[in-house]
Amino acid sequence: MPESPIIPAPRPRQPAPALKWGILGPGGIAGRFVDALHRQSDQQVVAVGSRALARAQEFAARHDIPQPVGSPAELVGLDEVDVVYIATPHDSHRAMAELALNAGKHIVVEKPFMMTEDDARSVFELARHNGLFAMEAMWTRYLPQADVLAQILEAELIGEVTYVAADFGFVANYDPKHRLFNPDLGGGALLDAGVYPVSFISSVLGAPRAVHAVGSLAATGVDDHAQLSLSYERALACAVTSLRSALPVTAVIGGTKGRVEVDSPYIRPSGLMLSTKAMWGPDPDAVRWTDTALAEPYDALHYQAIAAAGYIGEGLVESPIHTHQETTAVVGVLEQARRQLGAR
Amino acid sequence: MPESPIIPAPRPRQPAPALKWGILGPGGIAGRFVDALHRQSDQQVVAVGSRALARAQEFAARHDIPQPVGSPAELVGLDEVDVVYIATPHDSHRAMAELALNAGKHIVVEKPFMMTEDDARSVFELARHNGLFAMEAMWTRYLPQADVLAQILEAELIGEVTYVAADFGFVANYDPKHRLFNPDLGGGALLDAGVYPVSFISSVLGAPRAVHAVGSLAATGVDDHAQLSLSYERALACAVTSLRSALPVTAVIGGTKGRVEVDSPYIRPSGLMLSTKAMWGPDPDAVRWTDTALAEPYDALHYQAIAAAGYIGEGLVESPIHTHQETTAVVGVLEQARRQLGAR
Repeated sequence: MPESPIIPAPRPRQPAPALKWGILGPGGIAGRFVDALHRQSDQQVVAVGSRALARAQEFAARHDIPQPVGSPAELVGLDEVDVVYIATPHDSHRAMAELALNAGKHIVVEKPFMMTEDDARSVFELARHNGLFAMEAMWTRYLPQADVLAQILEAELIGEVTYVAADFGFVANYDPKHRLFNPDLGGGALLDAGVYPVSFISSVLGAPRAVHAVGSLAATGVDDHAQLSLSYERALACAVTSLRSALPVTAVIGGTKGRVEVDSPYIRPSGLMLSTKAMWGPDPDAVRWTDTALAEPYDALHYQAIAAAGYIGEGLVESPIHTHQETTAVVGVLEQARRQLGAR
Repeated sequence: MPESPIIPAPRPRQPAPALKWGILGPGGIAGRFVDALHRQSDQQVVAVGSRALARAQEFAARHDIPQPVGSPAELVGLDEVDVVYIATPHDSHRAMAELALNAGKHIVVEKPFMMTEDDARSVFELARHNGLFAMEAMWTRYLPQADVLAQILEAELIGEVTYVAADFGFVANYDPKHRLFNPDLGGGALLDAGVYPVSFISSVLGAPRAVHAVGSLAATGVDDHAQLSLSYERALACAVTSLRSALPVTAVIGGTKGRVEVDSPYIRPSGLMLSTKAMWGPDPDAVRWTDTALAEPYDALHYQAIAAAGYIGEGLVESPIHTHQETTAVVGVLEQARRQLGAR
């Protein structure tokens, strides 16, 4: 299957200023984010903060960051920090975001942006009120493949979109104290993994007019498996997430003239196949695009940082390709689904 | 990716008696069925019946069938016919089935078996009462890949099944008189195409404890796009069907130890991939099985005929791998979904 000129190439990003980043929450994802910035960009990570100074120091040493500090308040108070990357547990996102915004810092907040729609709305209002940039670290929105897909849809190469399906889930060993299963740490499949398929569907179709969730709860009361039917005026979507199913991590967009199947795992740089000749089943003339830019998938975390830096440089308060309104709506879908399932 | 000894080979079918078939409803699917029987089996097609004798004659000449007759009653009354294959429009299935059963003939009825759960229950009761065999022509159940899949699941190679997704749909030009859009002919996506994914899910998980459908209606009032969330005690499933979306026609089964992805289009002989090493995303050690037995996909229609002949030879009244109860439940799911959508 040839790489095809039919599929638009990803558009290059505008140059972005090299900002100074402070990291809040020195966990696994923060480590990958910092490494990606160091390897793939000229963004500077100047400080890392944690309630436990030793953790910040250990993280700083391992990831080559000059200044570890022993409290979130201290981190956001550092003059040299332009933008704070928040990767603390889900349930603390709001407090950390408000702390940073009140200290005059721009913020990029790990997924899910907030636990509830009200929280998201409130934090975005604060950012706007303070004239600061706020964005969810939904890195998938800033991958080259997201731009390829956006151009395919803009050009209506598959006609009108009538169907989107996406899944993300995995089998996790049940441990009531682990953040995945602990309701006090914002546990559950939806907030941890389900945010990916719901956000993917949103990137194509926007906010649904109705959400219907089915699923199950773990013994701790968090959702451990969920399937969401999202209804649109002229389209349907299915999002699946799980802590007890080995899911394929694929995404499909069906239209009136063809379809796009995004390679597994679609939540990282992968590739996609465009079919426009078959009305069902495999299309012998399907064409492919594959992202071969980066050897290490998690290095793609830098794209969102460069995008954020560019937007901040332009004086924006939100990501034009993933707006406050859209982020809030996605948080709302997850909240609605959790409520329907009776999840804690 | 090598063909793997981990994946069980399809089990050979028991020898079946060569029965004499009468065909009711000389349309496209009947032509493919007869050709498949002639090319791939020693089953004999002895007669074809239609309300229009000329159509029966034309079909008989084209498909090498000795006896065309000008009415369904005449067809089912022929002494030499053992079993009647019913491929008339959906809305006539019940009347044709009762005609054949009351004439003492076994029946194999095209999908969907009946339009309503009550009809299915009633027809199966009549068959049992008369000691006759009755089966839905859900050919996919009798494909070699269905047996491979059944063995994978029986051996619990993917652990407990927690997730199934399957779709079948296509873009159809809107024509209010065409059977796909005509409510008087049993139109709609669910009855025509949706029966495949719902039956596939049923083959893995059985009858759901709840059904929730979202979708849309064509101007004629039939469903033209539907997505069903099926809930089970410990699993979820999503079935999608459409007359206005170019769907991939794939099926996935996710479990607690791995997953199976059935190649597109899963509704014909295709192949499958078994992943047992990755808890999400692609498994580098995934193994494949591909069905290369037949050059012409529709020749696989003969498998169900041989299966039926074998069961009839054993004196059974139902297919042990696709029971009356299960067929009735699938018809019930389709009926429930249509009712939820307000479809005619």
